Amino acid sequence: MRILVLGGDGYLGWPTAMYLSARGHDVGVVDSGVRRQYDHELGSGSLVPIEALRTRVKTWREITGCEIPAYTGDLCDAEFVYDTFRAFRPDAVVHFAEQRAAPYSMIDRQHAVYTQTNNVVGTLNVMYAIGEIDRDIHIVKLGTMGEYGQPNIDIEEGWLEVEHKGRKDRVLYPKKPGSFYHLSKVHDSHNLEFGCRIWDLRVTDLNQGVVYGQETEQTALDPRLATRLDYDAVFGTVINRFAIQAVLGIPLSIYGGGTQTRAVLDIRDTVECIRLACENPADRGEFRVFNQATEQFSLQEMAKTVQNSFPGQVDIEYVDNPRVEAENHYYNFTHTALESLGLKPHLLSDTLLHHMFDVIEAHRDRVDLDLLKPTVNWRHSHRAGT
Amino acid sequence: MRILVLGGDGYLGWPTAMYLSARGHDVGVVDSGVRRQYDHELGSGSLVPIEALRTRVKTWREITGCEIPAYTGDLCDAEFVYDTFRAFRPDAVVHFAEQRAAPYSMIDRQHAVYTQTNNVVGTLNVMYAIGEIDRDIHIVKLGTMGEYGQPNIDIEEGWLEVEHKGRKDRVLYPKKPGSFYHLSKVHDSHNLEFGCRIWDLRVTDLNQGVVYGQETEQTALDPRLATRLDYDAVFGTVINRFAIQAVLGIPLSIYGGGTQTRAVLDIRDTVECIRLACENPADRGEFRVFNQATEQFSLQEMAKTVQNSFPGQVDIEYVDNPRVEAENHYYNFTHTALESLGLKPHLLSDTLLHHMFDVIEAHRDRVDLDLLKPTVNWRHSHRAGT
Repeated sequence: MRILVLGGDGYLGWPTAMYLSARGHDVGVVDSGVRRQYDHELGSGSLVPIEALRTRVKTWREITGCEIPAYTGDLCDAEFVYDTFRAFRPDAVVHFAEQRAAPYSMIDRQHAVYTQTNNVVGTLNVMYAIGEIDRDIHIVKLGTMGEYGQPNIDIEEGWLEVEHKGRKDRVLYPKKPGSFYHLSKVHDSHNLEFGCRIWDLRVTDLNQGVVYGQETEQTALDPRLATRLDYDAVFGTVINRFAIQAVLGIPLSIYGGGTQTRAVLDIRDTVECIRLACENPADRGEFRVFNQATEQFSLQEMAKTVQNSFPGQVDIEYVDNPRVEAENHYYNFTHTALESLGLKPHLLSDTLLHHMFDVIEAHRDRVDLDLLKPTVNWRHSHRAGT
Repeated sequence: MRILVLGGDGYLGWPTAMYLSARGHDVGVVDSGVRRQYDHELGSGSLVPIEALRTRVKTWREITGCEIPAYTGDLCDAEFVYDTFRAFRPDAVVHFAEQRAAPYSMIDRQHAVYTQTNNVVGTLNVMYAIGEIDRDIHIVKLGTMGEYGQPNIDIEEGWLEVEHKGRKDRVLYPKKPGSFYHLSKVHDSHNLEFGCRIWDLRVTDLNQGVVYGQETEQTALDPRLATRLDYDAVFGTVINRFAIQAVLGIPLSIYGGGTQTRAVLDIRDTVECIRLACENPADRGEFRVFNQATEQFSLQEMAKTVQNSFPGQVDIEYVDNPRVEAENHYYNFTHTALESLGLKPHLLSDTLLHHMFDVIEAHRDRVDLDLLKPTVNWRHSHRAGT
């Protein structure tokens, strides 16, 4: 298949592009480079050094003989989107190209507005390009498990059968997301479901859990193919951050009471889920939702797993929760759709964590400890310190 | 109370501002004038002549002695929003200031993107201004019954009690809106509900039905206080359009089979609902939703009511439905909240329609018949004729 990976220079976009290429697909990547710009803005950076996209693509060609054409541009530039889709002629587009950090969206008004307009307009442009050029192109869209919030009923895969006053309907699963970022993905989902109704689009919305890990079979082939590993409080995700704190010998910091539960998955499952979604497309007019996560843990459970795996002494500390969320809540999510397509989950294990500890150890001198402290508070409507 | 009406130069914003002023409130209006700009863009215009906002305000002062300060600017300009809120210091803001026509949002990509960014960013700026300046300010936000779509279960007021696999929750009512415009309001609702959780905002979301009528007690005081009456296929709403077609002696045009059902209300009920919402504010942290509509009719029933009321001969014709929607569907909506606050609905009656026929007759020479034909088709991802 011809698959265009939007956001193909990112933490997951780049490993996905290589994985699909290794599995015999004709892959192209689209990226504006804005993720690297956020690093400049925040003074942060990947713990593991990463190469420029052109070097990545060149290295991949050297090693595998496979071409991954790169298109540099912004999805908010509709002309660029239309031109790129016309040039590449994808069968599927995998859409990672959104601002993806909840804390970034909560910095202040400008960052909230930026996140929502960037994400929503980029996705609208993708929908219109497909509406115009070829409505058969399958959109594989990255959403997040965070869209659901913390409902007191089981989280189904995007849709819910309801019975009310003796009548029945199948409705979009009601969502109560926890940040302006998560909200932007809810907006996207509603827009995409409408696109399926009016233009018979094919859409798979992947509500992804918190991803951990940094290595896939392809990133390990050469250091120049490495993907990023974020440890800062804005872009770093929880298990990766705990692993980094363990190696650095500082306490694993749990926000709030630590009984908050999150759905998670291994980076190696992310790339496989995307392959499965692409190779088994949604029908014309179908808005299909998969919960792309394999396990659920409380923050405490995650911290204890890292603590127990680490060969040295590790403390756990509790810090004020910068987020507004319930700490004691029911959480149970369904995740059978991808497994029924063939996913064999990698579960959180010592093996992976030991490997991560080694990767982190090799680059520990690159850490700026100040960046680990959360500075963005959900309760504030202005930037910290202003 | 001090009430700031955002979009106070519009079809409903202006009558609302006068009504609240007449009821003893200190009212200010905010408007960018963009609704008048849409007329220039589309070559359309109000059937009833309307005065400039400054003339309206001056006339209101002459007649009643009441001041309605007008602030001219765009809600997408955050500095303007903050400055205006700091200057006026409202107890409540009534937020009509969004692009409000479904067909306008479906013209093409640019109009979809404009509608969603304009509406979502304007509302985010209002939320942030209140988050920053005074979280006690009550937001009375105009949404639409069209957000719900056509569910096969009863439409409740914004929230739904669900039981699923033996567990219960109260969830946001699941929505399946019918245009990029309606979607923008769904996005707003999600953002506002989040604002209630993180900043303890007070929000009343009014899901309004299709409004008909052109006159309130205040607009009738002087021709210079008249509000607009739209008949064009983009901004004109259905009952008003049928009344105009009857007077002009052309067939009442029903889109599709005509069994589609809509929730409706009289313009005189709109202004009273807004007063009731303002005078009975939502609690801190409460996201309160009212269905602001009083009756439901199929398009056929509306056409027949107009046909029967009109003193002359009127034909009905069926044209291809430019929208994508179910024609045979269940529809039953709850609307008890505003009535329990004291609303005494005006029901669709001959009396109102006869009055409308007179108003239209007086201005029939201003109609451009070409503007009555629908040119925007939901199935197209590009502008008609391109």
